Formats: sequence, structure tokens, C-alpha cells
Amino acid sequence: MKATVHVTLKPGVLDPQGQTIQQASEAIGFTRIAEVRQGKFFEVELSDGDDPAAARAELERFAREVLSNPVIEDYRIEFLSA
Amino acid sequence: MKATVHVTLKPGVLDPQGQTIQQASEAIGFTRIAEVRQGKFFEVELSDGDDPAAARAELERFAREVLSNPVIEDYRIEFLSA
Repeated sequence: MKATVHVTLKPGVLDPQGQTIQQASEAIGFTRIAEVRQGKFFEVELSDGDDPAAARAELERFAREVLSNPVIEDYRIEFLSA
Repeated sequence: MKATVHVTLKPGVLDPQGQTIQQASEAIGFTRIAEVRQGKFFEVELSDGDDPAAARAELERFAREVLSNPVIEDYRIEFLSA
């Protein structure tokens, strides 16, 4: 089973990396890039041979405990195939 | 206008960061995470007051020239609102 995980900063959390990208874009002539926020994106392949529900639950835990920092980040999982 | 940009490694390009995440996940007891590939994800706000088509074209160029490395990465843009 394939899945994707998006990890994004919670609303209100400052994103200095995104701000830097936006400022640099202005400096090199991009005039319409008003705001940039950077997140992470993971493509995950799950071994779900015997128990797809357990694989889904494991990915939920993996996203919450490993891929994201729940203090400042949100995560969103999409399962791409059953 | 809001848009998102996904930047992912081209198929066939090794992803040592993703491999490290996968191996670490095994080491701490996640048994069903078979493969991880890491990409980048950007949320972009465009100033498109006068000319939405120009804003879209600028984001295309920004994704191609700034956010991604076209030698090893692909990018995908989604426009979220008109």
C-alpha cells in the first residue's frame, strides 16, 4: 500500500525558511510571489500483506511520532491504494 | 491566488535521507514502513491582482528555476483558487 504524508507548520508558527525563499525570490526579480511556506512531503510504501488496518495504524503513529513535531507541525495522510 | 508546489526526486534517483528514515523506523520498532522517499512541499500565495495568467506563469518559472533542481527533481503545481 502506498501513502503520502504532508507535514506543515501549524498556522501562526513563523516559517523563517519560507520567508527567506520569498525574499530571495523578490531579489532576483519574481514580483508576484507574495508568501511562501515550506513543508515536508513523504511518499511511503507500507508492507500490509496480512493486515492493512494495522499498516494504516502504524503509519498514523509514524507520522505523529517520527515525521512531525506535534508542538509546531500538523500532518495529513493520504492512502493511495488499498 | 494560492497554489501548492510538490518537489520530488525523479524516479531512479537515490534518496539517502528517505533510506535513513526507513532504517531508523525499523530500529525503533516500526515493522511495516517498507520504503520512504522524502520530498518538499511549498504553499505559495501569489499576487495576481491584475493578471492571473502572468502570476501562474511566474510560479511555473519559480518552481522550475528556484524550488527544484531539474537535473534530479520533478515538480508539480496545483492552483487552489482562481
